[in-house]
Amino acid sequence: MAHGFALLEERVDLSVVVNTGDDLELHGLHVSPDLDTVMYTLAGLANTATGWGVADETWSAAAMLERYGQPTWFGLGDRDLATHITRTARLAAGEALTTVTRQLKDSLGIRADLLPMSDQPVRTKVRTATGWLDFQDYFVRRHHADPVLELRFDGLSSAQPTADVLAAIESADLIVIAPSNPFVSVAPILGLARVTEALTRAQPSVVAVSPIVAGGALRGPAADMLQSLSGEPPTSAGIARHYARQYPGLIDALVIDTADEANAPAIGASGIEPLVRGTLIGQPDARRQLAEELLELVRA
Amino acid sequence: MAHGFALLEERVDLSVVVNTGDDLELHGLHVSPDLDTVMYTLAGLANTATGWGVADETWSAAAMLERYGQPTWFGLGDRDLATHITRTARLAAGEALTTVTRQLKDSLGIRADLLPMSDQPVRTKVRTATGWLDFQDYFVRRHHADPVLELRFDGLSSAQPTADVLAAIESADLIVIAPSNPFVSVAPILGLARVTEALTRAQPSVVAVSPIVAGGALRGPAADMLQSLSGEPPTSAGIARHYARQYPGLIDALVIDTADEANAPAIGASGIEPLVRGTLIGQPDARRQLAEELLELVRA
Repeated sequence: MAHGFALLEERVDLSVVVNTGDDLELHGLHVSPDLDTVMYTLAGLANTATGWGVADETWSAAAMLERYGQPTWFGLGDRDLATHITRTARLAAGEALTTVTRQLKDSLGIRADLLPMSDQPVRTKVRTATGWLDFQDYFVRRHHADPVLELRFDGLSSAQPTADVLAAIESADLIVIAPSNPFVSVAPILGLARVTEALTRAQPSVVAVSPIVAGGALRGPAADMLQSLSGEPPTSAGIARHYARQYPGLIDALVIDTADEANAPAIGASGIEPLVRGTLIGQPDARRQLAEELLELVRA
Repeated sequence: MAHGFALLEERVDLSVVVNTGDDLELHGLHVSPDLDTVMYTLAGLANTATGWGVADETWSAAAMLERYGQPTWFGLGDRDLATHITRTARLAAGEALTTVTRQLKDSLGIRADLLPMSDQPVRTKVRTATGWLDFQDYFVRRHHADPVLELRFDGLSSAQPTADVLAAIESADLIVIAPSNPFVSVAPILGLARVTEALTRAQPSVVAVSPIVAGGALRGPAADMLQSLSGEPPTSAGIARHYARQYPGLIDALVIDTADEANAPAIGASGIEPLVRGTLIGQPDARRQLAEELLELVRA
């Protein structure tokens, strides 16, 4: 979704606020998978085949790490490693994650601002039948195959959104909640009290894009979580009810795919305005098209 | 030289004590160039074309590090990076360099023991016309082109050799000082008081191999340093006088190349026995041959 706005012919001042609850430490390196996926995508470096990592990646370090008996279930390619090495070194030198992220994305020629939700650590934990797991243990190592019984976000209650995040919200003409997983990608951000306060105060529309299309998640375990954690069916109407219940009055509209037009009345009934658009944005053209249509809402 | 002993048909219990004064921190990673060169060589992974690093190396991370504005004058290939990442993570977890080095070399199937001279940091500094430089700044970044006015080894006076190093010396049947640079590779090790004490007490012969052949260093700046730091001509006799003056009574014999046979009387005059052998050990066969000949000294 962020890529769509970045691809607009008309330049917009884009700030992308990103979840850091998925961050982890691997081999002593600070890995920020969500920041990196957005950064590589905006830089045109993303591996579109896998949906994570860098295109034209090599795996020499991983092969040696395996030989050394280091865990390699979380794939770190050689180019990707350079990101984590640089981030870790600069964090260790005392720079904030926000500063380091800006340096990294600037180096890759990204014009949009890329903002970690907080400079303080938040770590998502997932309760399964096995017990509490670190998020990436659940997501990558165990292929998000375990039914999720509960989530918690360690550090969230004391973490503060950065001044840059709050400023971006306060100065925005449009706020878009991307079609990311509401439970593990959106919830940590909206779990920062000062973010929801700022969003509630915000004059412009807050528009969410449904991560569920035609009864399934665009990607990942959102549909399963919608059922197990929110008791909702895996539909865009279920997403609307979840958002309306979880964040009362926060979200003005939910963009749903044309395939889900029949959900519109139920979404309206939840107090959120349904907007029917094409939301299958796997390809750059479709991304740009949806961004253009969302921008129309501001102009209208 | 260590590789020669490792290649012997008759298995010997080989312990290689390695200088750590060249160690440095790059991108927050602990790099031990001398340990790594020995380790990669003994593992059959060394890049024999460059004399450092790993064969069949890739450079993806370095290209990204450069893009991020990180210093790249010290070449860290992708496979090599895995070594530094693993070492750094394990040191940060509280393990000693000796332990980590053993884990790494064991993972690479190396039978010989590979021992850092100390688990405490020692850092070689080089005074040039520019002032004091970190060793790798002088050696790699500035291509050891500056005349060396003075050396110092920060941390050396308080550093202790490890118990493993002392045990290896005390149990040895033969002690060989490799044809390494006497000033920057050998001196930090022999600068550990308890090492020289153990060597002086040691029953077996202490045999050094001259790093100077036919008036030039086998590699690197040893010949220049012999002149600028010790006032000796760049000959194997100069090496003998340097060792005899610096470490009185420590070295029993100096192996010189057949090309330097004319130096033998001058070496003898310094109180060190000259041994004339083939010391051009660039190739594995020559290494093994010299190791075999040194082993004959023990048998004799």
